[in-house]
Amino acid sequence: MNPVAGNVGGMALGKDYAAQDCSLARALEVVGERWTLLIVRDAFYGVRRFSDFLAHLDIPRAVLSARLAALVGTGVLAKDGHDYVLTDMGKELWPVVHTLARWAEDHLSAEPSRVFVHTDCDTRIGPDGTCPDCGRHVPPEELEIHAGPGVRRRTDPVSLVLRSPHRLLDPIRP
Amino acid sequence: MNPVAGNVGGMALGKDYAAQDCSLARALEVVGERWTLLIVRDAFYGVRRFSDFLAHLDIPRAVLSARLAALVGTGVLAKDGHDYVLTDMGKELWPVVHTLARWAEDHLSAEPSRVFVHTDCDTRIGPDGTCPDCGRHVPPEELEIHAGPGVRRRTDPVSLVLRSPHRLLDPIRP
Repeated sequence: MNPVAGNVGGMALGKDYAAQDCSLARALEVVGERWTLLIVRDAFYGVRRFSDFLAHLDIPRAVLSARLAALVGTGVLAKDGHDYVLTDMGKELWPVVHTLARWAEDHLSAEPSRVFVHTDCDTRIGPDGTCPDCGRHVPPEELEIHAGPGVRRRTDPVSLVLRSPHRLLDPIRP
Repeated sequence: MNPVAGNVGGMALGKDYAAQDCSLARALEVVGERWTLLIVRDAFYGVRRFSDFLAHLDIPRAVLSARLAALVGTGVLAKDGHDYVLTDMGKELWPVVHTLARWAEDHLSAEPSRVFVHTDCDTRIGPDGTCPDCGRHVPPEELEIHAGPGVRRRTDPVSLVLRSPHRLLDPIRP
């Protein structure tokens, strides 16, 4: 990427933080755009198809297209036929997705819509991503999503699949 | 907060993700706006004064005012006289700030501008926030910031202080 200095106001269209040398700023250029982390979250849930992201996120088609293209361009997602799949680099965003969600539950009175269970131990992981039972930092491949008390009864295809426990990263539609 | 349905396009001004029940969406309503996590990062560095945030972040005054007011409103920062100080809730964002920065270093070829050292062990903490020496998950109060190879020679007051090792959360200007 070749960041260019631009309008850095609150409503700026540019993605760069040109004057900031911090690596956090570089990360935010890639995942800091509106909706992007929610798309990444859905990819962890196993969403792979454009139409499923569209129905589950309920965002304009053009926004979803732009975000998916950017995520492929930066290597967070890879195209596999018509599917969008998290790369290894993308999977390493799991602690960010999980920590932010738990932070909201702890501090913003957000009721958990999804609860993450370490399948080996059948135990809900802690806010820092470790399993209270085995003490390990659990990778997403070993987690199962369960519906939490804050879940809404939506009827899009993704929400329907996620009414039952579902292994993280397993395709929502095999 | 009382989210209202609004324009959810990429350039939307609204902060809410009304159709998303996920607690991640709630977190992004609070910290997902442009510049907000960089302000939180600066607060971890010990920046407390409006003029110091302004000079170090190099953003428009109105944007900084709006972001600081929102962070105080949601309880991430508290006002202490003229100072903006991280609350306990705000301090729990440290793993998010640190993980995203390290992720950029690992995957986006971002050279570290700041390196975080566990003062007790004099050891750089790992990408997951634990100290390789003592194995503990290190809270920000026990970390010291050192200039990394990617740092720019900027001359604002914050950058000048951070040329020397500085304990996280200690005020940049005592």
